[in-house]
Amino acid sequence: MVSERLYKQLEFIVEIDKLKQVLRQSVVTGSLRNENDAEHSWHLAVMAILLAEYAAEKDVDILRVVKMVLIHDLVEIDAGDTFCYDAKGYEDKAEREQRAADRIFNLLPADQAAEIMDLWHEFEEMTTPEARFAASLDRLQPLLLNYHTNGHTWQKPGVNSEMVYKRNAVLKENAPELYEYVKEVIEDSIAKGYLRR
Amino acid sequence: MVSERLYKQLEFIVEIDKLKQVLRQSVVTGSLRNENDAEHSWHLAVMAILLAEYAAEKDVDILRVVKMVLIHDLVEIDAGDTFCYDAKGYEDKAEREQRAADRIFNLLPADQAAEIMDLWHEFEEMTTPEARFAASLDRLQPLLLNYHTNGHTWQKPGVNSEMVYKRNAVLKENAPELYEYVKEVIEDSIAKGYLRR
Repeated sequence: MVSERLYKQLEFIVEIDKLKQVLRQSVVTGSLRNENDAEHSWHLAVMAILLAEYAAEKDVDILRVVKMVLIHDLVEIDAGDTFCYDAKGYEDKAEREQRAADRIFNLLPADQAAEIMDLWHEFEEMTTPEARFAASLDRLQPLLLNYHTNGHTWQKPGVNSEMVYKRNAVLKENAPELYEYVKEVIEDSIAKGYLRR
Repeated sequence: MVSERLYKQLEFIVEIDKLKQVLRQSVVTGSLRNENDAEHSWHLAVMAILLAEYAAEKDVDILRVVKMVLIHDLVEIDAGDTFCYDAKGYEDKAEREQRAADRIFNLLPADQAAEIMDLWHEFEEMTTPEARFAASLDRLQPLLLNYHTNGHTWQKPGVNSEMVYKRNAVLKENAPELYEYVKEVIEDSIAKGYLRR
């Protein structure tokens, strides 16, 4: 006998298979095909575990950070990926994503829907040390991919180092040692022509 | 100043980007393209969080399960994916994968290399409740994908329901409620012609 609760959980688990079809701007090193949100989320989760020691707040709950990064992009199944340097796309991003969250998270039993909704809001609003560390990783990962693909995304029209510094500013206070590396990468990328000053 | 330790961690994090290129036998629902190991690992991690309540052992450490599923396939970067119904591929699987583990995990600082190596062995040997629950999820996820793609992998020559039952046997004791669902799926798949009896 399979419970109604389990059916709901499994329906959600099958629904989120669609995250594997949501393409990001970044490309995967080696193949130069676009990365998808599921791959990106996996990469962030591994980073959360391995780089936990660099969170400025010393007692961040790493399971909470991992949960957050695993689910942070699910809303893009409906709302699509918004390029981080696309000001226009950001205008209605919050509204589109909240509608997506309402539909997708509510496939789950009420208690789990509420937990995932809270985690997603926490991530979006960066109200906790966990959310700010998760956001820091969410900036660092595409920077790593860009650096190792000759600045693939940074070559797009209108992108310059000032924008990349601004995008990565969250690391300055929340993961200062990682921010030192970010600065090194940005300056080296400018020197190598991956990124316009 | 970026420490030697952080450089090592980041080298590992960039190296494992290759997991996104390791293709599995399962296909993604919707597009029917082959799933890759990074996507699969992400899916398992979300499942670990949402289905924790079904682990037979009531105090499984879910962070440990999540860590295990996130890293369980990294060795396939070098060793490739071995189809679970390919007896020949299994002959030298352990040896190929241990060589891969030695190379890849040792990119990390020694303490983290040892932690990941231990987690991977624990997963492979199924010596703990966490490893057995992780293995259960690793069986359930492709079953879900197969069920929702008209039995894609099950249609391959030589695969039958007896083999799928055997493959999923680990759930019987380690996640009995999930096993009830597995049985339902297998019987329904036989009835629908997705899987040969």
